[in-house]
Amino acid sequence: MTGRLIAFEGIDGSGKSTQVRKLAQHLGCDVTFQFGATAVGNSIRSILLDPRNEQLDDRTEALLIIADKAQHVREVVRPALQAGRDLISDRYGASTLAYQGYGRGLDLSLLNTMIEFATQGLQADLTVFLDLDVSTALGRVGNRRDRIEDIGAEFFGRVRDGYRSLAEQHRSSWVTVDAQGSVDAVAARVQTCVHAWFAEQQ
Amino acid sequence: MTGRLIAFEGIDGSGKSTQVRKLAQHLGCDVTFQFGATAVGNSIRSILLDPRNEQLDDRTEALLIIADKAQHVREVVRPALQAGRDLISDRYGASTLAYQGYGRGLDLSLLNTMIEFATQGLQADLTVFLDLDVSTALGRVGNRRDRIEDIGAEFFGRVRDGYRSLAEQHRSSWVTVDAQGSVDAVAARVQTCVHAWFAEQQ
Repeated sequence: MTGRLIAFEGIDGSGKSTQVRKLAQHLGCDVTFQFGATAVGNSIRSILLDPRNEQLDDRTEALLIIADKAQHVREVVRPALQAGRDLISDRYGASTLAYQGYGRGLDLSLLNTMIEFATQGLQADLTVFLDLDVSTALGRVGNRRDRIEDIGAEFFGRVRDGYRSLAEQHRSSWVTVDAQGSVDAVAARVQTCVHAWFAEQQ
Repeated sequence: MTGRLIAFEGIDGSGKSTQVRKLAQHLGCDVTFQFGATAVGNSIRSILLDPRNEQLDDRTEALLIIADKAQHVREVVRPALQAGRDLISDRYGASTLAYQGYGRGLDLSLLNTMIEFATQGLQADLTVFLDLDVSTALGRVGNRRDRIEDIGAEFFGRVRDGYRSLAEQHRSSWVTVDAQGSVDAVAARVQTCVHAWFAEQQ
């Protein structure tokens, strides 16, 4: 038996981590995240978030983020699914397409190839995209800033547009949820979408 | 004006670092190395060589090594060449094809694609392959072992064969130098080959 992988995507401040927790409680399943969920991934994360590394090349950044995926799939995602456990991941492959591809302007097709290499083709069964306008999202982020987040509204606008394109391109495996409103209101929308998707699969 | 990039390749113990130094003294040019020549690369190197990371996935390893290349090209290689300075690099792109491709069995074509992405297509003008049989090379390595080196003769045999294939495939930009014998004897062979190559370029 194989578990199902549900990924949450969205720009910083869209409420992913909170909603991942809420859905996991509701469904009673395990939670993981990209990036930094393994010891190796955590070391990679330290490099990426270190403000001293401001000379970090966009390509280096992308490759490090994709390296984290390889380790995450090997140590966490695949073992859970193979043991038949459902798993919810706070970000998965699409984050890299949205941030490094649409956001930074790196080649989407190449990024896709590298993500597929890293994950050995293991894709999320369902991706929940929490969509929120940039100014509301950045307002929520507040002081929670690091090297990656400290790059302004224009960048996040491109990332959001990227997510919207991806959602359009993958209608059978993505749902877009309006992330405005209270935590409970958004959680209710997520649950409705996820149960509808579960029902379609049967 | 653009400087020339000379890369040294070979299995561990083939004498690369020594011969890189000798040739740099002879030509009066700068030296660099992969991997770990930048601050970011050095952090990546720490992850790769940490014996606690024995669960490191082959794909994670490859992606980390390629991430180092992106940073190395951006911070070190390209600026030197653009300033018109010749540069000798102790390992470059081909190491990843030899070790992670021929050695670990990862897809060569995918590795090539990722290396090209990382280096933005910047290849060595000349690659000097120091060829040495595995048992002599491993004898030289002695106690200088880490996670990557601690994997045995069979692996290094595949890597050496990989280098030999690459040298066959790129005859116009690779020279193979017999790495047996004294440091000075090998250095003399290297100089002869490099000067012959320089002469051909004019």
